[in-house]
Amino acid sequence: MSKASTTGTAWSLDPDRALPAEPRQRDIARAVYRATAELPIVSMHGHVAVEAILDNQSFGDPAELFVIPDHYLVRMLVSQGYSPADLGVPAVDASGTASETDHRKIWRLFCENWKLFRGTPTRYWIEHALIDVFGVTHVPSSEHADEIYDHLLATLALPEFHIRSLFDRFNIEILSTTDAPESDLAAHAALAADGWGERVVPTFRPDALFYPHHATWRDGIGRLSARSGIEITGYESYLDALRKRRFAFAEAGARASDHGHLLADTTPLAAADAGRIFDAARRGQISQGESHAFAANMLFETARMSLDDGLVMQLHPGVLRNHSDANFTAFGADTGFDIPIPIEFTRSLRPLLEEFGLDPRFRMILFTIDEDVYSRELAPLAGVYPSVRLGAPWWFLDSPGGMARFRDLVTETAGFYNTSGFVDDTRAFASIPARHDLARRVDAGYLAKLVAEHRLGLDEAVETAIDLAYNLPLQSYARRDS
Amino acid sequence: MSKASTTGTAWSLDPDRALPAEPRQRDIARAVYRATAELPIVSMHGHVAVEAILDNQSFGDPAELFVIPDHYLVRMLVSQGYSPADLGVPAVDASGTASETDHRKIWRLFCENWKLFRGTPTRYWIEHALIDVFGVTHVPSSEHADEIYDHLLATLALPEFHIRSLFDRFNIEILSTTDAPESDLAAHAALAADGWGERVVPTFRPDALFYPHHATWRDGIGRLSARSGIEITGYESYLDALRKRRFAFAEAGARASDHGHLLADTTPLAAADAGRIFDAARRGQISQGESHAFAANMLFETARMSLDDGLVMQLHPGVLRNHSDANFTAFGADTGFDIPIPIEFTRSLRPLLEEFGLDPRFRMILFTIDEDVYSRELAPLAGVYPSVRLGAPWWFLDSPGGMARFRDLVTETAGFYNTSGFVDDTRAFASIPARHDLARRVDAGYLAKLVAEHRLGLDEAVETAIDLAYNLPLQSYARRDS
Amino acid sequence: MSKASTTGTAWSLDPDRALPAEPRQRDIARAVYRATAELPIVSMHGHVAVEAILDNQSFGDPAELFVIPDHYLVRMLVSQGYSPADLGVPAVDASGTASETDHRKIWRLFCENWKLFRGTPTRYWIEHALIDVFGVTHVPSSEHADEIYDHLLATLALPEFHIRSLFDRFNIEILSTTDAPESDLAAHAALAADGWGERVVPTFRPDALFYPHHATWRDGIGRLSARSGIEITGYESYLDALRKRRFAFAEAGARASDHGHLLADTTPLAAADAGRIFDAARRGQISQGESHAFAANMLFETARMSLDDGLVMQLHPGVLRNHSDANFTAFGADTGFDIPIPIEFTRSLRPLLEEFGLDPRFRMILFTIDEDVYSRELAPLAGVYPSVRLGAPWWFLDSPGGMARFRDLVTETAGFYNTSGFVDDTRAFASIPARHDLARRVDAGYLAKLVAEHRLGLDEAVETAIDLAYNLPLQSYARRDS
Repeated sequence: MSKASTTGTAWSLDPDRALPAEPRQRDIARAVYRATAELPIVSMHGHVAVEAILDNQSFGDPAELFVIPDHYLVRMLVSQGYSPADLGVPAVDASGTASETDHRKIWRLFCENWKLFRGTPTRYWIEHALIDVFGVTHVPSSEHADEIYDHLLATLALPEFHIRSLFDRFNIEILSTTDAPESDLAAHAALAADGWGERVVPTFRPDALFYPHHATWRDGIGRLSARSGIEITGYESYLDALRKRRFAFAEAGARASDHGHLLADTTPLAAADAGRIFDAARRGQISQGESHAFAANMLFETARMSLDDGLVMQLHPGVLRNHSDANFTAFGADTGFDIPIPIEFTRSLRPLLEEFGLDPRFRMILFTIDEDVYSRELAPLAGVYPSVRLGAPWWFLDSPGGMARFRDLVTETAGFYNTSGFVDDTRAFASIPARHDLARRVDAGYLAKLVAEHRLGLDEAVETAIDLAYNLPLQSYARRDS
Repeated sequence: MSKASTTGTAWSLDPDRALPAEPRQRDIARAVYRATAELPIVSMHGHVAVEAILDNQSFGDPAELFVIPDHYLVRMLVSQGYSPADLGVPAVDASGTASETDHRKIWRLFCENWKLFRGTPTRYWIEHALIDVFGVTHVPSSEHADEIYDHLLATLALPEFHIRSLFDRFNIEILSTTDAPESDLAAHAALAADGWGERVVPTFRPDALFYPHHATWRDGIGRLSARSGIEITGYESYLDALRKRRFAFAEAGARASDHGHLLADTTPLAAADAGRIFDAARRGQISQGESHAFAANMLFETARMSLDDGLVMQLHPGVLRNHSDANFTAFGADTGFDIPIPIEFTRSLRPLLEEFGLDPRFRMILFTIDEDVYSRELAPLAGVYPSVRLGAPWWFLDSPGGMARFRDLVTETAGFYNTSGFVDDTRAFASIPARHDLARRVDAGYLAKLVAEHRLGLDEAVETAIDLAYNLPLQSYARRDS
Repeated sequence: MSKASTTGTAWSLDPDRALPAEPRQRDIARAVYRATAELPIVSMHGHVAVEAILDNQSFGDPAELFVIPDHYLVRMLVSQGYSPADLGVPAVDASGTASETDHRKIWRLFCENWKLFRGTPTRYWIEHALIDVFGVTHVPSSEHADEIYDHLLATLALPEFHIRSLFDRFNIEILSTTDAPESDLAAHAALAADGWGERVVPTFRPDALFYPHHATWRDGIGRLSARSGIEITGYESYLDALRKRRFAFAEAGARASDHGHLLADTTPLAAADAGRIFDAARRGQISQGESHAFAANMLFETARMSLDDGLVMQLHPGVLRNHSDANFTAFGADTGFDIPIPIEFTRSLRPLLEEFGLDPRFRMILFTIDEDVYSRELAPLAGVYPSVRLGAPWWFLDSPGGMARFRDLVTETAGFYNTSGFVDDTRAFASIPARHDLARRVDAGYLAKLVAEHRLGLDEAVETAIDLAYNLPLQSYARRDS
C-alpha cells in the first residue's frame, strides 16, 4: 500500500501486504511466509528475451520498461479510451498511424491514470518494482510523474540495474525462456559458455508449426527444415525434424515444451490423414477445421516424443487471440485483445491420457484461464493421473484473488502435491520478484486458514509452503529422463 | 437483523449490517461506507411504472405492495407448495382458477412463512423497507401478521407515503423507467411539464420487436408503424421507424436502450437476408432459428443506430423465460419461472465489437446471470474495449454474496472503472433504498479488504466507493453525444 | 489437527476444527454447532453393503478398512506414481498382475504418504475416524505405521467395533443402502425381522437397466424378469416389471430411487420409439445415441412411476466413468478414474418438470459435481419448483470448501428450505460420523457469518442448523404417499 497516499510519509511496502487481514490468521501466515520469503526464485515458464540476458542489457527508460511492452497495462488504458499509439505501441500497418515517441509524455499519461489500476495485480507488481527494486519514493501521479521519470532514468542506467545484476539480486536460481523450434539456441550456448547454462534454459514452443492454416506456417516449415538439417518432404520428415530439434533443446538444457492452443483437443490422426493434411497445407489448401485437427494430433505426437527426450509438456488452451481485427491490423498481437473462451479438458485430453497418462516417462502440466474447470475437471484429472500436474493460475488469474480461488477450488481434490508450484509467465523482468513474493504470500494465507481451522499443523504448513515455492517447481519441471 | 427475534426489544436494523464481520475490516468498511451512505440514488435501470409516478400513486395495501407483484417472493412460496393463486396472482387463462382476493389472508400466509426467506436478499430488502421506510416494529409472524397489516395499511394511505414523497425521501436523483418503442411517452412529457423531466427518464426496450417468431410481434410492428408515423413496408422502413423512435426517446431524456435476449449473439445479416426474414415473418412464416438470427442482427443494428443518437446499449442475455408452460398458461410471465442458461460472450459479441467496439461514440453495458463468464469473458472484454462497461450483478445475483463474488471475480482484470456502478433493476419501488444501500455496504466491505491487506490506501478506497455509488452510474449512462 | 505433529503430545481433534477462524464468528458458530452436534444421523444416500449390517461384520484389518476399498485414497496415491496393485486393489484382467497381499505393507505405504492428503477431506475424515472412533494416538508416519496397524487390528476385532455396535454408537437413526432392482431384498427383510426395518432401508438404483448399450444390460433384463415374475417381452412389460419392483422396494421401506446418468436429459420418447429401441437392444443392435435417448426417456418414466409409489427421485449426472480404459481393464470401476464433465439442467430437466414439476406427489433431489450450475441453474430451479430439492455437495465437493461454496452459491436464491440437508454418499462406514459432523460445522460457520453480519438472528440460525442436520433430510426423503 502506498502509505504516502494516506499519510504523506515515504511510499513503502507494508511487510504484511497480501496476507490475511484477520489477526489470528495473519500471525500464522507471517510464520509460514517467513519460511519462504528468502528462497531462490525458480522461474520455469516465462518470456524474457534470452538476448537481453546475454547482452546484459539495460532496461532503457521508464516507458520502455513499464508501459509500452506491458499488455496488461496498455489494455487498461485502452479500456478507458486511449489508443495504443498514445502509449507508444508502434503501429504495424501501413496506415501511417503515428505512435507517441516522447517517452516522458507516455510516462506522464500512465502516472495520471494510476487510479485505474486500483485492485489489479498490475498495480501490485508495479508498486513492488518501483519501491523495492528501483527505490521510488512517490506514488505515481501527475504531480510526481517527472520526478519519478528522472529518478528511474538515472537508476536504470547504473550497471547494478542491468539485467544480469538484477538476476543475481533477485536470487533467480533458474529461468526458462521461450524459444521457437527453429531457434539456433546460440544465445543459450553463449550463456552456457559464460557459466550461465544452468541458470537460463530454453523452452521448446512449436505452436506456429502446429497450426497449418496460419499465414506464417509455410515459412516456419522452411526454417525448421533449414535449422534441423532434415529436408522436410512430408509429414514423416516434419516429425523427424521436430524430434531432432527437441533433442537439441534438451541438450541445451530445456526442461519443457510449451503449447498455447485454442482448444485442449488431443485426438490423434491416422498417419495417412495427418500426411494428407500436411501436404495440402503446403499447397495452401487447408481449412480451419483441418488445421485444428492437425494441431490436436500434434499434441498427441508431442506426448509421444516426450517419452524419448523427457521434455515436460505444458498446455495452456482457451484464449481467442486478437479479438479485435482492427486493433490487430494496426498494432499487432499481444496488445491486450486476447480473450478467453470456455474450455473443456475431460474429453479433450482423454485420447492423450489413454495412451500416455499412466506412463512414468510422461509429465504434463496444465494451465487454464477458465476457472470453471478447476474443481470440475483439472483437480480430478491431476488427482489420479500420475503424469498430470496443475500449473499455477495464469495470465488474468495471476493475482491475489485468482491464486486464492485456485487453492480453494483445487486443493481438496488434488492436494498440494499434484500442483506445479508457482510459474510467473512474464516478459516483465522487473516484476519477477513481485510475482513470486505475492504467490508465496497468498499460499501462506491459504495454509494459515487451514492451520487456524485446525485442519493442518503449523509444521506441515511451513513444509508445504517451501515445497510450493521451491521444491515442486523444480521437481515438476525436471526432465523425465533425468 | 431482527433483534426482536432474539431479545424481544424493538425490531431494528443494525448499523453494521452486511459489513464484514472481522473487526479490523469492519472498522475500515464503516469509514468507507460513511462516505457513500447519504449520496443521492442514481437508478439507471428499473421497472417502476412511469404512470405511478405521474399520478403520485399510493401503494395500496401490504399484499399489493410486497407480495402479489414480487416474483422473488412469489416463487419462494411456490417452491414450498403454495400456488400463485394462493398469493393473489391473477390467473390469466380461461380455466377459471380463483385467485385469493382476501389480501389480509395473503399477507398472513407471507408472514407465516417468513423463515423461508432466511439468507435471501428478499428478506434483507423487505426488512429494510418494513423497518426503515414504514416503521414496522415486529418481525413478520403468524402472531403479528394482522398488527403489521393494519399498521402498513394506515401508513400507506398517508400522503407522505405516496410515490413522489418517497421519491424525495429516498433522495433519488434520477430514475430510468423501461418503455416499449411504441410508447407515446406522454407520461414522461407530463412529468417533464411538472419539472420532473431530469428525474424520471425513459429507456428504449425493443425486445418484443426483435424476435419475429413471438406471437405479439406482428401487432407490435403495427403499433410501431402507427406511433412512428412511418409506414412499415419492409425491413428498411422498420429500421427507419426504430431509428425515429430512438430519437424521440432521446429527446424525452432517455439515456439508454435495453435488450433482454436469450443469447448474446450479435452476428449481422446481409440486408437482403434480414429483409427476407422480415417479410416472411409478416406472413407468419418464420422458424425459431431465423427469429434468433434476426434478433442477433438487430443487436448489431442497435449498436450502429446508437452512433447517431448516443443511447447507451444495455444487454442482459441468458434467461430462458417461462420454464413451466403450465404455470405460464395459468399465471402468465414474470411469476418466478425464468431460469438462466449457460451463456457465451467472447465469440457472440465479436461481430459487434469488431465493428463498433473501438468507436468512441459507442457505449455498451453488459449484464449476466451466469457467473462463469465474469472472470473468463466479461472482465477481459471490459478490460480492453473502451466501449464496454460491466453492469452490476443482476436479478438472482443482486445479493450480498452475489455482489461480493462479482467484485472478487471482475476487479483484478477489469479494475473498478470499467464497471457501471450499481443498477437496481427493480419494480419494487419501496426496495430501492435497501438495494442501493446494500450495494454500498458490500462494496465498502470489498474495498476494506483491500485496505486491510495493504493493497489500497483508505483515501483511495473512499474515492472509489463514491465513484461506484454515484459517479460511475452517471458517467456510464451518459448519452454519448452529451 | 494433529497436535502431536507440532507438540509431541497426544494426537487429538480440536473441538473447534472446521469452524471459522475469526473469533467473533467462531463464537457464534460454536453456539450453533452445539445445537446439532449430538443429533441423530440421518443417512439417506449411501453405499454401505446391507449384508455387512445383517451379518454384523467386523471391518477386517486396517488396509481393508481404510485403503483398498477407498477410491479417494487410492487415486491420490496413484496420482503420485503408485499402482493400484501396490495398494492391494485386485486386478480384474487376465494379465496376471499381482496385487500386494501383505496388508501391513499396504498400510505402511499409506502412512508414509500421509502428507499427500494435506488439505483434503480424506485427511479430515480419516483423522476423525482414527482418533475418535478407533482411539489411535499417533499421526500416521513411517515411524508409527506398525504401531497403529497393530492397535487397529486389535481394536477392529472387538465386538464393540463390529458394524451394528458402531451403528448404535454413531447414533444412526436411519441409513439407506443402494440396491439393484433385481435384488431379492432378503437382507433387508432379515434386518426387519431383527427389528432393524426402520433403521436400514433399500434404495432403488436402476441405472444398469436404463442404458441398453451397456454390456450387462441384457443379463440385467433377464434378472429383472426373473425377480419380478413378469415375462419381459418388450418395452411395456419392462415398464411393468420396473413398476412392480419399485412397489416391492417401497414395501421394504425404500424412500427413494437413485439415478447416476451421464447427462441430465429427460426428454420422453413416444412409446413406439422406446419400444423399437428396446427391441433392437435385445437383439444387440443399438447405438450409443439411442441408448442415451432411452436413458433420458427412462428418467421421465421414473418420474411418472413415482406418482404412484411415492419414491423420491434422486438424480446425479455429469460423471464420465472410467476415463482410463487401461486402468479399467486392469482394475475395474470405482478406482478413482471417474472425471466430471460440464452439465446442463435448465433445458435438460424441462420435459420432466413440465409434466411433473408442479405435481405435489412428485419429489426430485438434484446433485451435481459441476459447481457452475449452482447459482445459474440449480438454485433458480429449486427456488420455484415445489418438487425440486437440492442435494448436498457430493463426491469431490463433500469437503469444507465445497460445502461452503454450495451454501454461498445456492442460499441467496433457493434459501435453506429447498435443500435436502446432508447426504454422506459413502461406502466407508467408519467415516459416516466425520462426514455428518463436518457438514454440521461448515453449516454452523455459514450461519454464523449471517449472524455476525446482522443478516440473521442467532435463534433463527440455531433452528436452521437443526433443520439442515436432521429435519430436512427426513422430510426431503419422506415417501410422497406417506
